[in-house]
Amino acid sequence: MNNGPINSYPFGREVPDGDNRERHVCGDCGWIHYVNPKIVVGAVVIWEDKVLLCKRAIEPRLGYWTVPAGFMEEGESTADGAARESWEEARARIEIDALIGIYNIPRISQVHMMYRARLLGPDFGVGEESLEVELVAWGDIPWSDLAFPSVVWALQHFDQTRDQRHFQPFDNPDLDRHR
Amino acid sequence: MNNGPINSYPFGREVPDGDNRERHVCGDCGWIHYVNPKIVVGAVVIWEDKVLLCKRAIEPRLGYWTVPAGFMEEGESTADGAARESWEEARARIEIDALIGIYNIPRISQVHMMYRARLLGPDFGVGEESLEVELVAWGDIPWSDLAFPSVVWALQHFDQTRDQRHFQPFDNPDLDRHR
Repeated sequence: MNNGPINSYPFGREVPDGDNRERHVCGDCGWIHYVNPKIVVGAVVIWEDKVLLCKRAIEPRLGYWTVPAGFMEEGESTADGAARESWEEARARIEIDALIGIYNIPRISQVHMMYRARLLGPDFGVGEESLEVELVAWGDIPWSDLAFPSVVWALQHFDQTRDQRHFQPFDNPDLDRHR
Repeated sequence: MNNGPINSYPFGREVPDGDNRERHVCGDCGWIHYVNPKIVVGAVVIWEDKVLLCKRAIEPRLGYWTVPAGFMEEGESTADGAARESWEEARARIEIDALIGIYNIPRISQVHMMYRARLLGPDFGVGEESLEVELVAWGDIPWSDLAFPSVVWALQHFDQTRDQRHFQPFDNPDLDRHR
């Protein structure tokens, strides 16, 4: 595992008192550097039966298509984060309506929370992290050029629950494989 | 804000290329130390109409009551984390059944995901982080001695959806106050 430059500081791996797993602990001051899973927040954004897709301008998966999504930031809620990403990547103002799925990817310690939302008006644009942004008809979704599995799952689960208001968020279909 | 000993290293605050907010960036090597919200996972665990409560043996809120819950760890799923916490704090084996709520606390950058679960058998015990563990009848829940708001919300929302299978997870009732 590449832990980055933390290894050039006097950090070692040890199990702190009262804990049951190894952490990065500073040999100088005893400070414990906890590493926890990160949250990705995103939204399937709909306007007149079309879905808002962004062609990625950045790695990973540059040139592939995604729904607006990205790492949740400090000081915001999950839904606010999804709305912020929609603005940053697609200049889209959205109203969130339901939580479609919570997709766990333990291998990379990420939790993807994907919402259902509608565009508040016909305007959108191309944010800095996108090459193109389009409203795409359902039949034209480029399934084999989607950037990440969670984008595929969110779109499929959106389709399964289009007219539902009361449902539990989906898990990823392949979660058991990762356990 | 106390950022801990990171300040004794050559980290400064700057906006990396292509980003739009200040991060901790190492003056030596350019490594960006991203800080993102943390996930707390827990469960309202039921056995014969009683709920499993733990009296906390650690700060914060030592001596107050909680459902099993704690920080999600790397390499696990959210539901697995809730099951792990139930084992660690209450020696309880559980089966998770639904997601009751996702409670956002932007002020401290935490997202609390609270599940509904049933105890798999009558056995449980007192884990290291607990002083006492009890199965408590609904009428005996010590509402004024619960450790955290998210514990109160999870129990209230559990009560509102006891017999439901299809519902969206609740938000915290006071989320708008924090926006």
